[in-house]
Amino acid sequence: MTERIYLDWNATTPLRPEARQAMAAAWELPGNPSSVHAEGRQARRMVEEARAAVAEAIGAQVRGVIFTSSGTEANALALTPGLRKGSSVPVGRLVTSAIEHASVLTGGRFPADAVARVPVTRSGVVDLDRLEVLLASEGPALVSIMAANNETGALQPVREAAEIVHRAGSLLHVDAIQAFGKIPFDINEIGAADLASLSAHKIGGPKGIGALVFSDGVEGIDPLLRGGGQESGRRAGTENIAGIAGFGAAVRAAMVAREADAARLKALRDRLEAGLKEISGTIVFSDDVPRLPNTTLFTIPGLRAETAVIGFDLAGIAVSSGSACSSGKVQPSHVLEAMGFGAKLAQGAVRLSLGWSTSEADIESCLKAWRKLANTLLRGQRNTA
Amino acid sequence: MTERIYLDWNATTPLRPEARQAMAAAWELPGNPSSVHAEGRQARRMVEEARAAVAEAIGAQVRGVIFTSSGTEANALALTPGLRKGSSVPVGRLVTSAIEHASVLTGGRFPADAVARVPVTRSGVVDLDRLEVLLASEGPALVSIMAANNETGALQPVREAAEIVHRAGSLLHVDAIQAFGKIPFDINEIGAADLASLSAHKIGGPKGIGALVFSDGVEGIDPLLRGGGQESGRRAGTENIAGIAGFGAAVRAAMVAREADAARLKALRDRLEAGLKEISGTIVFSDDVPRLPNTTLFTIPGLRAETAVIGFDLAGIAVSSGSACSSGKVQPSHVLEAMGFGAKLAQGAVRLSLGWSTSEADIESCLKAWRKLANTLLRGQRNTA
Repeated sequence: MTERIYLDWNATTPLRPEARQAMAAAWELPGNPSSVHAEGRQARRMVEEARAAVAEAIGAQVRGVIFTSSGTEANALALTPGLRKGSSVPVGRLVTSAIEHASVLTGGRFPADAVARVPVTRSGVVDLDRLEVLLASEGPALVSIMAANNETGALQPVREAAEIVHRAGSLLHVDAIQAFGKIPFDINEIGAADLASLSAHKIGGPKGIGALVFSDGVEGIDPLLRGGGQESGRRAGTENIAGIAGFGAAVRAAMVAREADAARLKALRDRLEAGLKEISGTIVFSDDVPRLPNTTLFTIPGLRAETAVIGFDLAGIAVSSGSACSSGKVQPSHVLEAMGFGAKLAQGAVRLSLGWSTSEADIESCLKAWRKLANTLLRGQRNTA
Repeated sequence: MTERIYLDWNATTPLRPEARQAMAAAWELPGNPSSVHAEGRQARRMVEEARAAVAEAIGAQVRGVIFTSSGTEANALALTPGLRKGSSVPVGRLVTSAIEHASVLTGGRFPADAVARVPVTRSGVVDLDRLEVLLASEGPALVSIMAANNETGALQPVREAAEIVHRAGSLLHVDAIQAFGKIPFDINEIGAADLASLSAHKIGGPKGIGALVFSDGVEGIDPLLRGGGQESGRRAGTENIAGIAGFGAAVRAAMVAREADAARLKALRDRLEAGLKEISGTIVFSDDVPRLPNTTLFTIPGLRAETAVIGFDLAGIAVSSGSACSSGKVQPSHVLEAMGFGAKLAQGAVRLSLGWSTSEADIESCLKAWRKLANTLLRGQRNTA
């Protein structure tokens, strides 16, 4: 069997060697971090070192990092009525964008009638004018906007959003899961995000570990899991030590590699898109706005993503159709629908996402496979039409 | 440094070699189990194999296993108003015992005024007569009783409880976290537990992974985490694949080893208790009722558990003071208080718990250390009295 080519890094990044090492070290520790004996203290130290790494990477205080079991849990923990900053009025409603991850679109613990959605432009960028209008009426809101979209890679104007949100006496939650490790993301530099969600497996850490980070002064975080003092009482349950240690190691490695990786991946991605566009009719979504350096979401009219993903898979290439978080069911992308594309086009988008081991040869193989696939698929459609 | 002796297996069991192997195998898979490509399907297969192992060990259907990030999360997910079996009336209240884990005592998602507690006997066993009385009035309840107490090791009458609960048209949740892998536990044999919570790290699996198991016909499980189709829509978020794979492998290994381990550990534990009782005034809690084979909770009047745990630790022996799940703070054991012991005695209990690598030499070393410690501690108390 020939080597597989992995172009689905936005769904899951392979585990970094540094993370493996850290996880194997965690195995050696029998202790529960809540235990007071030497074994317990050792485990505690490992958790706290990882916490410091995450805090440093995102510009937060160590005390502002809560480890969770996923980005989804971090989002669920963040979306809580009653959050406030200092003595401000607690938030009573949620404003999200229409292109958020499913775990944000559910609204967390806000009742359905307390959730509003900001539309996005045709390029997949949050409409800040509409955000401002939405915040002008009613009381303080929690605003949840992602730093970069997981399907298109389009960067969102979180810095400008933060200004609008804070001017309105509201709080900003940034789902940084897809952006973290790919572009600079510091909760202070972007204009003081009040809360941010992270996930380890997107940066080469293990699956099943994430974090909610909050800046100093944010109060009213209501635990989802109770009955133990872990995570300063904000999240009960024995810690996933191997996962946390792997997360910390992956963060450190990702921060070191980020700048060089980004430049290299952007060059490869641009080559990939140029190649795709040589095949007539290829649409690359959001290519007129700043995007993550590693992401391409594309289609050709008439394409069915499901068929394309299977075709690529048979050709030895792992690619995705939009988000992988919906149990493998192919549904029209809510992101593309929000951008104004019809269900037909929204069902035909294929996502290629690159990572540190992606080579020029991978890109060429991908383009070769696509040329063949596109011909077959489109010919098939003409015949059945 | 001399070899440390680990006698805190009820807080956390060292990772089994089989679990390490399975976790390392999971590392090799970049795929997200929700992805449709070959890498995704491989990851999915790994998750489903572990699910089958857990289901088989506890006598459940594979479709009745939901992986969670901890036993605490499994308990939180279980304790949900509205649970029902088939067409029965949904449960509207919760009845727990007074010696449950903190994550059950919080009441999960039941409002505080819908939670009742059944007392326990002086031996630390749930009072079934009181349970029957509590269930006779009002509507159907969810009853949550642990299979074995984590501090005393006392086995609870879950089989008899199941009869009472079902006769009253109520549902039974069994927190089997401490019992699983130490004594036979099959949700059918004990009289059809409707739901049961498990945790991997108690049986030599990794920390940070657990499961809620429910029997066929149980409906109304209300997800804590939403926004993804994982775990058949009952728990959203990318799966902790390494953790799940390690859990599956640990379950298989624990099932093979259980019977032989139990006999060996009981003999060692009995030797330990005989030795402790040679030191005058030693009380072993719940020693007049069936207990887990590996657990001893003991005190001598006037002892402060905190001091004893530190003393043992300095002597190279890891032991615990009651539950390790409360952030290392030494508080009176709610279990011993519920058994009718005063706060003073409830603050003085030391837990010794044994596991597969515990040797006769460990027991002798422990007794030697305790003899010295007890003399010092008690002399100290006499001097300051």
